[in-house]
Amino acid sequence: MDMEVGQVLHMNGGVGETSYANNSLVQQKVITMTKPITEDAITKLYCSSYPVAIAIADLGCSSGPNTLFVVSELIKAVDSLRRKMSRKSPEYQVFLNDLPGNDFNTIFRSLSVFQNKLSKQLGPDSGPCFFTGVPGSFYGRLFKKNSLHFVHSSYSLQWLSQVPKGLENNKGNIYMASTSPPDVLKAYHEQFQQDFFLFLKCRSEELVDGGRMVLTVLGRRNDDPSSKEGCYIWELLATALNDMVLEGTIEKEKLNSFNIPQYTPSPVEVKYEVSKEGSFSIDRLEVTEVNWNAYQNETDISDAFKDGGYNVAKCMRAVAEPLIVSHFGEAIVDQVFQRYREIIADRMSKEKTEFVNVIVSLVKD
Amino acid sequence: MDMEVGQVLHMNGGVGETSYANNSLVQQKVITMTKPITEDAITKLYCSSYPVAIAIADLGCSSGPNTLFVVSELIKAVDSLRRKMSRKSPEYQVFLNDLPGNDFNTIFRSLSVFQNKLSKQLGPDSGPCFFTGVPGSFYGRLFKKNSLHFVHSSYSLQWLSQVPKGLENNKGNIYMASTSPPDVLKAYHEQFQQDFFLFLKCRSEELVDGGRMVLTVLGRRNDDPSSKEGCYIWELLATALNDMVLEGTIEKEKLNSFNIPQYTPSPVEVKYEVSKEGSFSIDRLEVTEVNWNAYQNETDISDAFKDGGYNVAKCMRAVAEPLIVSHFGEAIVDQVFQRYREIIADRMSKEKTEFVNVIVSLVKD
Repeated sequence: MDMEVGQVLHMNGGVGETSYANNSLVQQKVITMTKPITEDAITKLYCSSYPVAIAIADLGCSSGPNTLFVVSELIKAVDSLRRKMSRKSPEYQVFLNDLPGNDFNTIFRSLSVFQNKLSKQLGPDSGPCFFTGVPGSFYGRLFKKNSLHFVHSSYSLQWLSQVPKGLENNKGNIYMASTSPPDVLKAYHEQFQQDFFLFLKCRSEELVDGGRMVLTVLGRRNDDPSSKEGCYIWELLATALNDMVLEGTIEKEKLNSFNIPQYTPSPVEVKYEVSKEGSFSIDRLEVTEVNWNAYQNETDISDAFKDGGYNVAKCMRAVAEPLIVSHFGEAIVDQVFQRYREIIADRMSKEKTEFVNVIVSLVKD
Repeated sequence: MDMEVGQVLHMNGGVGETSYANNSLVQQKVITMTKPITEDAITKLYCSSYPVAIAIADLGCSSGPNTLFVVSELIKAVDSLRRKMSRKSPEYQVFLNDLPGNDFNTIFRSLSVFQNKLSKQLGPDSGPCFFTGVPGSFYGRLFKKNSLHFVHSSYSLQWLSQVPKGLENNKGNIYMASTSPPDVLKAYHEQFQQDFFLFLKCRSEELVDGGRMVLTVLGRRNDDPSSKEGCYIWELLATALNDMVLEGTIEKEKLNSFNIPQYTPSPVEVKYEVSKEGSFSIDRLEVTEVNWNAYQNETDISDAFKDGGYNVAKCMRAVAEPLIVSHFGEAIVDQVFQRYREIIADRMSKEKTEFVNVIVSLVKD
């Protein structure tokens, strides 16, 4: 699973080195999974208008070894196409976006090596690639009108712009759960609708006509937003926290006021919002799964990574630690994740545990 | 004088907090001095074509309280114009450029407060401002073709892309000096010509026709490149270093191989390169002076800043320390700047000490 770096950075702008290492394999998996869709979209984009300059934005780019990977794959795909067609290379303008807290310095300092490598791979007659960092929330305008050709975003859009209002009745839970009352599910859903609509609206102003977006979102297949697919991983964290309430380590009221600002939409919900906003047509809408433990079925890994509970808890810690720390304080965090790890390991040994990815490929009409 | 933050960051990407504070007043002075020229240029730009989106680049933006100041002044000038003419506000796209070592994180984290303040100043019907960071050397392409309307650069372009080759005979000096042999002056001048030509060439590809640039460069009035105006401040540093050679603290060979990668051009040289490159017309070319001690004639300052030698040495330390440390090592640096401070204080008490600014306002034909 691939939430850790992109999301933590998207939310908080800081993550330890271990998470990057952990992130590598996971991110690679999702990229590999999405690659046919992404390549299809950039091919259709390029062949529909042969732009002399292509502006690509990666929204929620985070800062790690994979930050530049998708972009380089997109550029290579275009370069391969234009060679086949004996066309002059376009120039590439790459916008890397994340929240202002993201570590852009690290990205920028790695660019020179990356660009040298990329330009060797592309060969001498390929157009220059210009990289820029764009700090800010994608739930607002980030680029000037009609300035983008291609938008990519992976594992970022499930994060809401804020914790929904009106979750007072979500006692004992930290996200939507099977025991959440209907008004809690409604509040989460409405926040998603509002955020995703705004996202589409802003991008529709920024993309040229015929421009394309490929969005990969942590989601669910099931119509029920409180179904296990999207919520189980958080329910297990809630279990750990509730145990600590029972033992008196955490105050009950403190737990009751803690909620995760995320929404894992179904493909139907994504489709509905796209249709409601009205600027985009859906070219492809697909759902895939990825095991909670990214290292499952990997043979060439060190012993440390053979412990699935450890792997998943580590990934989730990278996502959740900043949220936990800012709400509950630093002192309890080790204990929370030790318990979480044990609970996860137990569940993984007894049932199939997967994240669901909703991937949508859109064209601006 | 205003070299410290922009240049250190341009060269090395790191500077202490004290330099920012010190930089404030100095940077303000140069901005104030250049403001009529900058405003004239942006006015002519806006009124020649009324673009619906204006792309402004600040090259060598550094990272400090003044990084966003010029850009905000430019935007306010356009906004004031379009109000007078009852025109709809353009959108603003701002590109902040410096070397990849610059602290972009700090700029990005200050943007939200800055943007809120700016949008309050501009009022509700003003177009959005989109800020992006662009890491890389301006002695190369940074932006896609025909994508910029206005380029600003202050106190950055006197830095060369590298120490010129062929300075072996510049023994005992660390920059051009009255005792430098002719081949040393030639090597410095040729490096400047090559770099400035390349700078103009790249910008001419990136600017739209009719686009404008205002460049403020540390320079000289005199035709002789080894004249005191541009060189004296470095000659005094060389004096400090030579004293330490005599005392055995620094190896002679080590000093002989140390040279500052800077060139302080005359207006004639700037004019010649612009004409040779051929893409730009000169609208205005002016020369101003600023005292070495930015705090001179300031009454509302703390006692610490009343010591001119201290002020200037501190400014110069921010510029030169990274160069000194990387060449001579950390150990000698305090002693170097203690001596430098004494030498500067002595000279300032005996003669008029000023930096010369060459300001050129260009239009892309």
